[in-house]
Amino acid sequence: MALVGVMRPGHAQIRVLDLEEGIHFYRDVLGLVETGRDTQGRVYFKCWDERDHNSLIIRQADRAGIDFFAFKVLDKATLDKLDADLRAYGLKTERIPAGDLLETGERVRFEIPSGHLIELYADKTCVGNGLDMVNPRPWNANSERGIAPIRFDHGLLYGPNIAAVQKIFTEVLGFFLVERVLTPDGKGNVAIWLSCSHKVHDIAFVEHAEPGKLHHCSFLLESWEEVLRAGDIMSMNKVPIDIGPTRHGITRGCTIYAWDPSGNRFETYMGGYQPYPDYQTLTWTFDELGPGLDYPQRKLHETFLTVVS
Amino acid sequence: MALVGVMRPGHAQIRVLDLEEGIHFYRDVLGLVETGRDTQGRVYFKCWDERDHNSLIIRQADRAGIDFFAFKVLDKATLDKLDADLRAYGLKTERIPAGDLLETGERVRFEIPSGHLIELYADKTCVGNGLDMVNPRPWNANSERGIAPIRFDHGLLYGPNIAAVQKIFTEVLGFFLVERVLTPDGKGNVAIWLSCSHKVHDIAFVEHAEPGKLHHCSFLLESWEEVLRAGDIMSMNKVPIDIGPTRHGITRGCTIYAWDPSGNRFETYMGGYQPYPDYQTLTWTFDELGPGLDYPQRKLHETFLTVVS
Amino acid sequence: MALVGVMRPGHAQIRVLDLEEGIHFYRDVLGLVETGRDTQGRVYFKCWDERDHNSLIIRQADRAGIDFFAFKVLDKATLDKLDADLRAYGLKTERIPAGDLLETGERVRFEIPSGHLIELYADKTCVGNGLDMVNPRPWNANSERGIAPIRFDHGLLYGPNIAAVQKIFTEVLGFFLVERVLTPDGKGNVAIWLSCSHKVHDIAFVEHAEPGKLHHCSFLLESWEEVLRAGDIMSMNKVPIDIGPTRHGITRGCTIYAWDPSGNRFETYMGGYQPYPDYQTLTWTFDELGPGLDYPQRKLHETFLTVVS
Amino acid sequence: MALVGVMRPGHAQIRVLDLEEGIHFYRDVLGLVETGRDTQGRVYFKCWDERDHNSLIIRQADRAGIDFFAFKVLDKATLDKLDADLRAYGLKTERIPAGDLLETGERVRFEIPSGHLIELYADKTCVGNGLDMVNPRPWNANSERGIAPIRFDHGLLYGPNIAAVQKIFTEVLGFFLVERVLTPDGKGNVAIWLSCSHKVHDIAFVEHAEPGKLHHCSFLLESWEEVLRAGDIMSMNKVPIDIGPTRHGITRGCTIYAWDPSGNRFETYMGGYQPYPDYQTLTWTFDELGPGLDYPQRKLHETFLTVVS
Repeated sequence: MALVGVMRPGHAQIRVLDLEEGIHFYRDVLGLVETGRDTQGRVYFKCWDERDHNSLIIRQADRAGIDFFAFKVLDKATLDKLDADLRAYGLKTERIPAGDLLETGERVRFEIPSGHLIELYADKTCVGNGLDMVNPRPWNANSERGIAPIRFDHGLLYGPNIAAVQKIFTEVLGFFLVERVLTPDGKGNVAIWLSCSHKVHDIAFVEHAEPGKLHHCSFLLESWEEVLRAGDIMSMNKVPIDIGPTRHGITRGCTIYAWDPSGNRFETYMGGYQPYPDYQTLTWTFDELGPGLDYPQRKLHETFLTVVS
Repeated sequence: MALVGVMRPGHAQIRVLDLEEGIHFYRDVLGLVETGRDTQGRVYFKCWDERDHNSLIIRQADRAGIDFFAFKVLDKATLDKLDADLRAYGLKTERIPAGDLLETGERVRFEIPSGHLIELYADKTCVGNGLDMVNPRPWNANSERGIAPIRFDHGLLYGPNIAAVQKIFTEVLGFFLVERVLTPDGKGNVAIWLSCSHKVHDIAFVEHAEPGKLHHCSFLLESWEEVLRAGDIMSMNKVPIDIGPTRHGITRGCTIYAWDPSGNRFETYMGGYQPYPDYQTLTWTFDELGPGLDYPQRKLHETFLTVVS
Repeated sequence: MALVGVMRPGHAQIRVLDLEEGIHFYRDVLGLVETGRDTQGRVYFKCWDERDHNSLIIRQADRAGIDFFAFKVLDKATLDKLDADLRAYGLKTERIPAGDLLETGERVRFEIPSGHLIELYADKTCVGNGLDMVNPRPWNANSERGIAPIRFDHGLLYGPNIAAVQKIFTEVLGFFLVERVLTPDGKGNVAIWLSCSHKVHDIAFVEHAEPGKLHHCSFLLESWEEVLRAGDIMSMNKVPIDIGPTRHGITRGCTIYAWDPSGNRFETYMGGYQPYPDYQTLTWTFDELGPGLDYPQRKLHETFLTVVS
Repeated sequence: MALVGVMRPGHAQIRVLDLEEGIHFYRDVLGLVETGRDTQGRVYFKCWDERDHNSLIIRQADRAGIDFFAFKVLDKATLDKLDADLRAYGLKTERIPAGDLLETGERVRFEIPSGHLIELYADKTCVGNGLDMVNPRPWNANSERGIAPIRFDHGLLYGPNIAAVQKIFTEVLGFFLVERVLTPDGKGNVAIWLSCSHKVHDIAFVEHAEPGKLHHCSFLLESWEEVLRAGDIMSMNKVPIDIGPTRHGITRGCTIYAWDPSGNRFETYMGGYQPYPDYQTLTWTFDELGPGLDYPQRKLHETFLTVVS
């Protein structure tokens, strides 16, 4: 295989303040497909074009935020190898048994210096995307139910020590650094965008004092016209928008940031370019974070740096 | 690295019947960036958003067609490893010294059973995409000069023995089979789409009696609106269109097929989904090749199966 | 009023070979809104964003084709004035009483030299577009049910004597000639596009030996992306496509032509420019009808000139 | 003619603080076509797809703002008739001789109760849109030079007494009221959108204490993708954006508002629906002005109500 090791973001577990409200939002407004509920009361969703059983899990809790963010790896051997590599690197890993999450195999969990729990797993039941495996049509009714993203694309996490986090992702997990924002003095990074594929980001981090915070989970749309439609649907449902529709300078992607009813930010996203591991990192100076965030307006919306869950 | 081994299509060398006519077409109509000419009279081009020195090389010859199709691999160690693997598999490989192609390192060349010359290489000079490495803007004037694709995306080659070709690509080079079209009896494949990444195809093959033929080189656009613009520019320049604008059922991509002045087919393409190595292959039956090729019209354009260079 | 006299295409009555099949097609595939059925067995539809009660009426008959094509005029005084003008011009007019068509006022009907029945009317019940009159949202679920055009845009009719037809439309009804295609000898027109507004066409005619034929009714979409979606939906429903997706050179509009189950051609259309009465007519020579029809392919699809209902 | 009387916005004359800076902005950034300069030092522009000689005139002055906003009427007889009608209504009109503005016939000028100078004229030299009148291509290089709108679409003016203004436009000039925003008490209008065609607005007014103010001139684009591109070009040229990219609830149009270097707001706009004179006015309550202005964000940007030139 040419695409080995860590393949892609697999699932994230998010806390919501009211489960029914959360189900309504993620199923009917964002337009995910509900695929199951477990005995712990967790509710499982996938994007319509994803084939694995789940990519977003919500549970009710007293405060919003993210429990863990997971990547699917190529196979069981890869999982064991990466577990060993992480331990050899000095991280403590934990094995969560298969079945703890519905239709999901054994997970290797570890905490990174930003205070986030990251997981790796090799197995999740393929339930298909609702299109036939033989002579499929290109889309179906689920493509137009709610915002209807095609994929859980990436996450942006806020916490301390992102230089150490970057080392783990690049030296152990095989990611490469696609873009970065320098600190005001230019000596370090305040933000990093990391890829394990040829996406502009599979995960990103911003340096932040408080550990373990969620900035947003991002869901992929297929066109700028669908970003407009997402904005319309948000408004029809009075979903509070943070930023957008606009283009990011960083990644070139086109976006709307908004909040779920519990205050978890999410992104509906499209575009960006396709970097490869041999690509040199693009650098943004701190004073150009405005256009980096909101390219047309060249504006550093304050909420981007301060509001997390 | 999670994306290792063979990374992506790197370059193809195409024969044109008249060099000046070819230069005009690829530079001014397709809108590639000319990056050099060598002592053999070859002319080098790249797509505007590519960072490496070249991705398409043309040379004048008595008949159209493709000389070789090359992939960039992660690094020199990978190149040596894949060379050894190919030889161990029983293929004869040849080393082309660095510098034979401008700004390109040593290449490992081998012939596959379809009669095509495939190359691997690890080094090609990064000349950048014309945007700054620090605080880049998202595009520049080259994005709108001619059709202006962002990337040499993939190729479709016609020749015999594609079952054997598939084995080499999947068992030695790390590709996976994304989609396929069955033979009328359903016992084999008449067409295969192979990926070394999470693109729907990095290379594809159709079973064909005559070896070493080119069906098309494909160039990536960013939107369906740019496909329309490409069609306008083709018409303004009287470029003969084969098929499109339309959507493929196979890969879901949106396309125009047309011919360069020498009769080499090319594609201006956008869209498709993003498969991963754990994805099950999608299958098309032979009787559904019509919608597979031209989804709206459900039509198997005869030229698709018969006209190659 | 600055926009007076004849305002816009109002309704067309089309014959289908099987009513249930026709209802299914126009309601579920094309995505019109069914608004009523009358005692004659006719079924009434409107496009979702239209406000008047109906714009397309179908009835079962032994052969496909069009019964009549109607324009809404500003008011009752205009209707009477135009009736008098038509009679003064030498045409015979007939009054169809209010209520003959559901929710539609008195109609003035006349036959034009191409053998088509044209109607004028001033009143049709406003039923709204399903959005509120106060603080409306921009669209609703009907916008995404089937192809879901926003408006019955124009018709193209085939018949003899289009020079005489043009005189009636321009000299009596206040239309202007937006574009035309010359006869091979350049002495007359084989096709004319006429506007009573600032659309590129409210009605068009092609010279044709057989009188009273329908080439197509055209339904407006809002973007090129919706044209692609229309093509997908046609394919999912095995609707036979004639031409497209493509751009017309004539009018610059973007289009798919396809046939309803009875063989009536229809068009899903977007774009074009906005001409005004002071605009000089654009002219196409007969030898350039290919790019005029299918701009990317520069191709005069034979069916365009020969297949009518 | 069905489209008679006042046809469309014809030209506006805008004051800029620095002529060279203004020329650079309107020609190179907005991408208008410069068509002439007169002995008074005024510089004339048109949008690339307009056929008449000019639609925007700039002159240097000590303060920004608008000198006059003009409509083209059908012909000289219409001009004389409307002049008489305006005087009969009680307005004072003035005749500006042909040639005062380059390539423009006699103008009838009058002041409306909001303090703006409105002009009517029947003649302006047709210089064409740069495409042939016979067998035209759909666009040319001017379509992609700068933001490159296709048309000067409408204006929004701020001043007192808009109820009186509305009466003049609807009772004398033949406009109809497409949409309106109510005053907080619901007894009057704070904003009105008026059409003389089937556009959602040819001119609009907001009630404002200070007379004669310009909110924005609006330039039409062809797609939401072009609105994104406009935003990119604004950012590349550090043009300050006020609002957008976003969709208006009012008119459904998609927009960016930004300022020229002198502080005159302009809009790059696409979309909206097509109302006719028989359409009932849509009403917005004052508390819903937020979604009316910025539908996704449901936000009443303060600058919209306060910053004018």
